[in-house]
Amino acid sequence: MGKGELTRRSILDHAVGLASQIGLEGLSIGRLSEELELSKSGLFAHFKSKEALQVDVLRHAALRFVEAVVRPALKAPRGEPRLRALFERWLDWARGRALPGGCLFVAAATELDDKTGPVRDQLVRSQREWLEFIAGAVRLGVDEGHFRRDIDAVQLAHDLYGVMLAWNHAARLMRDPKADRRARAAFENLLVAARVRRRRTA
Amino acid sequence: MGKGELTRRSILDHAVGLASQIGLEGLSIGRLSEELELSKSGLFAHFKSKEALQVDVLRHAALRFVEAVVRPALKAPRGEPRLRALFERWLDWARGRALPGGCLFVAAATELDDKTGPVRDQLVRSQREWLEFIAGAVRLGVDEGHFRRDIDAVQLAHDLYGVMLAWNHAARLMRDPKADRRARAAFENLLVAARVRRRRTA
Repeated sequence: MGKGELTRRSILDHAVGLASQIGLEGLSIGRLSEELELSKSGLFAHFKSKEALQVDVLRHAALRFVEAVVRPALKAPRGEPRLRALFERWLDWARGRALPGGCLFVAAATELDDKTGPVRDQLVRSQREWLEFIAGAVRLGVDEGHFRRDIDAVQLAHDLYGVMLAWNHAARLMRDPKADRRARAAFENLLVAARVRRRRTA
Repeated sequence: MGKGELTRRSILDHAVGLASQIGLEGLSIGRLSEELELSKSGLFAHFKSKEALQVDVLRHAALRFVEAVVRPALKAPRGEPRLRALFERWLDWARGRALPGGCLFVAAATELDDKTGPVRDQLVRSQREWLEFIAGAVRLGVDEGHFRRDIDAVQLAHDLYGVMLAWNHAARLMRDPKADRRARAAFENLLVAARVRRRRTA
């Protein structure tokens, strides 16, 4: 990795943190140049436009999400343990352990849902990949015999997303001290419904 | 109701629709004066500041939510039928039947969650009232014998909020044609877990 690439990454790290706080729309090359005390022309050499910067920030945030959430969870055994690890890591991510302003994707979703263009497309692409990844983890749970054969893995991924969005609303807006407990209870209810019901047939 | 009050209401109706599209932060007396072709000074007479305007817009949106969602649902019988009516009306509201840009509260939640002040306080107050109203509807379902006595009504209200946020994400950002079906499936799963389990004891 050359010096240029290292500089670019450290700029993007800062930009991702900033975007999590002020929103993707507030992020501009001008603002970033003030924050980092770098020349605008230098930043323009790395990012051709505000839009290109926003796309790169979303891409970089997705890489950091993979590093913080997906990669460590892959160490857990397939099936329910891995789904649990993904959920707990995701909760950590949303709590802002990695980003000061909390989950950039949640904020960007409501910022961009009425818009069109490459920034929105990048967000949709990364969100789709993540939902498909969760559905894949659910299917591995079926193969492992943890979850019912007739489970709708895409529905469970969708529902899990709802659990995280509700956590976000409860914790960040409502400052509900029970937000974690509520999210875990909702997750456990989804698992109960997903599991092979051994006890009834026993 | 005097002429001044009627004018104020029609201004707020427009402002709520505008805020649902451009966000609460984008809403200013200047922008509103351009849109409505009214003088800034006239608008300042109704709303003393941008902040006061934003608070009034949130208050007015809450009134419209009550008219569009709560009041019609109160005609349904207490318990599960009323909870279903609330859910379906809420889905209609989120779909933007009432507001061009979809649910103003969802967009405002991620806009305001990092902020402090009277605008955020107004949003939190109305969200708390709504969550408590849902929990109350769940408790009526317990009284009617539809739901389990040991149900956590606050948890169910929280979970239902998550179902709506997941719908919002799926429909508005991901443009998922199955968003309605996914939301209804999630809602039915919550009801299954909430119901008195007659069959097992039979």
